[in-house]
Amino acid sequence: MAKKGKASEVVVLALCISLVCVHGELRFDGEKGEFRILQVADMHYADGKTTPCEDVFPSQMPSCSDLNTTHFILRLILAEKPHLVVFTGDNIFGFDATDAASSMDAAFAPAISSNIPWAAVLGNHDQESTLSREGVMKYITGMKNTLARFNPSEVDVIDGYGNYNLEVHGVEGSGLANKSVLNLYFLDSGDYSSVPSIPGYDWIKPSQQLWFQRTSLKLQRSYMKKPEPQKGPAPGLVYFHIPLPEYASFDSSNFTGVKQEGISSASMNSGFFTTIVSAGDVKAVFTGHDHLNDFCGELAGVHLCYAGGFGYHAYGKAGWSRRARMVVSSLEKTENGSWGGVKSIKTWKVLDDENLNAIDAQVIWSKSSNFKRMIH
Amino acid sequence: MAKKGKASEVVVLALCISLVCVHGELRFDGEKGEFRILQVADMHYADGKTTPCEDVFPSQMPSCSDLNTTHFILRLILAEKPHLVVFTGDNIFGFDATDAASSMDAAFAPAISSNIPWAAVLGNHDQESTLSREGVMKYITGMKNTLARFNPSEVDVIDGYGNYNLEVHGVEGSGLANKSVLNLYFLDSGDYSSVPSIPGYDWIKPSQQLWFQRTSLKLQRSYMKKPEPQKGPAPGLVYFHIPLPEYASFDSSNFTGVKQEGISSASMNSGFFTTIVSAGDVKAVFTGHDHLNDFCGELAGVHLCYAGGFGYHAYGKAGWSRRARMVVSSLEKTENGSWGGVKSIKTWKVLDDENLNAIDAQVIWSKSSNFKRMIH
Repeated sequence: MAKKGKASEVVVLALCISLVCVHGELRFDGEKGEFRILQVADMHYADGKTTPCEDVFPSQMPSCSDLNTTHFILRLILAEKPHLVVFTGDNIFGFDATDAASSMDAAFAPAISSNIPWAAVLGNHDQESTLSREGVMKYITGMKNTLARFNPSEVDVIDGYGNYNLEVHGVEGSGLANKSVLNLYFLDSGDYSSVPSIPGYDWIKPSQQLWFQRTSLKLQRSYMKKPEPQKGPAPGLVYFHIPLPEYASFDSSNFTGVKQEGISSASMNSGFFTTIVSAGDVKAVFTGHDHLNDFCGELAGVHLCYAGGFGYHAYGKAGWSRRARMVVSSLEKTENGSWGGVKSIKTWKVLDDENLNAIDAQVIWSKSSNFKRMIH
Repeated sequence: MAKKGKASEVVVLALCISLVCVHGELRFDGEKGEFRILQVADMHYADGKTTPCEDVFPSQMPSCSDLNTTHFILRLILAEKPHLVVFTGDNIFGFDATDAASSMDAAFAPAISSNIPWAAVLGNHDQESTLSREGVMKYITGMKNTLARFNPSEVDVIDGYGNYNLEVHGVEGSGLANKSVLNLYFLDSGDYSSVPSIPGYDWIKPSQQLWFQRTSLKLQRSYMKKPEPQKGPAPGLVYFHIPLPEYASFDSSNFTGVKQEGISSASMNSGFFTTIVSAGDVKAVFTGHDHLNDFCGELAGVHLCYAGGFGYHAYGKAGWSRRARMVVSSLEKTENGSWGGVKSIKTWKVLDDENLNAIDAQVIWSKSSNFKRMIH
């Protein structure tokens, strides 16, 4: 666990690489040909300094608060230099947050003060304070440097709040500078079922799935047509809060990471995994919700990954470090020495220990493996 | 097994009760307050008299052909007096049908000649002859007395061919004469997956689920608003070909009927069961596809039912009668002695044996049971 951070000491970080974040447009960094995403799951932020930690050792309790969560994000931003921070819900723990807006201001402050673009989706606890789900998402979309959007403008009616996608363009000056070479999808997986005969958590509805399907198709067509027509779709990554029932398909023999609690998906399968696989571009899904699970497993060509619990005012396990998930996509070099499309995608977790140890690094997709699969 | 029927001997039946089928509008019969649906699954029709039977006793083979299938429908229509016949796909077995149109003409002839309204959806074999899926469905919608439709006009794009709904109105002259008191939904469950990483059968897509969801919502609102506002939604029944993965939730301890083969659903769950349960009005789903399964089981308040194999040019089991499923909905009497909304829905199967024995009769829904569930 990290030492207590103090909000008053938050250093304004200026890590923003101009080519990556000007005008809210995301693009790959032209130096290393990389795009680095930090996923922060389940901050469970409440009131800051006065909000105690959960599941830390008794000796840590007196000095532990939400500020440890803040401090962990800041350390990660300094160490991992992400181009985008994605908050995958339960960003605030509504029940204990006196004021939803203030709690969000504090929770997202490290990303904002670091001047890094950030995105967020809702969990099942974000609406439990002074704002509704709609209110929380509206508030988020008005915050500084956020790329989060309320909902797609091209769709009349859609379930949930905070369904949107982001394009990550190729390197400035390269052939793919005006194309999205990496697609990020964000969806609202809801909170609790409103159907009496279906107990438990909510799910991603047909209206959201149809929007996702059509967005993916549109992006794929655009990527594969002139100018600079590409042979296959650009890879896609999907972020939301509640894991899919298919997360229960794995055990330690076929996942990387740990599973220390059950899969708290919806009690019924709403088919989003099938929709994702059918779309054909998505290489991985990233959720939170189950703080003690942090694994990635592959099913039908798609990795299903947890980030692991991040926040200190959230259930966890004393002695089992809070953690975050990094995803780094790397571009290939073209024949003329410029940057091309995405070559590979790697992920690992970073622990909130003294050295911010990185564990469980794995390649979740590479262009050649995909090519092999196509031949096969 | 029935004796061989001859197409040339087909008697034109005139069972149509005028109040039930004029103008292609369906309504409950004013005499008994009933609406009777005959489900015919997997006729597997090919070329008629020259097409041999499958899986009958060797002694039956010489005289057995598609005409036995024809004869069975005619016997059922005479005995069960259905107000609607629903053909749930694999109506023709395309591989063996020399001409798709001629095969369909012969396959649907008993319903047409009996002057009974009928509906049909596609299976996975209907397109294997001289017409595509689109062509088959277009042909069906042009046939006499059919209420089948190509696709909903209110939706721009939808997957599949033959997604539509039918309203069954209350008794002529009763308070609910102008309301749909029973809703029938028909969907195209496709044929085979077109996604390389998902093997096996196809599934009902997000676009179809969204159409179903919105249609159900619209029907429920209309039923519960003035004039004659009702307290709850009218019951709905859903018909399509390929069973849902949830059909695998049952065993002999909690279903009625038999399971003699595996559940040949899509290999992944596309969430239509969740969408159905969420809609709140559907009481039962009726499919075919697995000829040796004929059970009904209840999950989350919805019955999932097979009809059992019907056609003689289809795999089956010698000595295990070909069969069909009846569904009869009954109206309640109002205080003033008129007919009201649906009180209960029963189902049973009818065997193609000497006496057309009815087996496994069960109530799949009654208004009081629903009321109990709501209180609970």
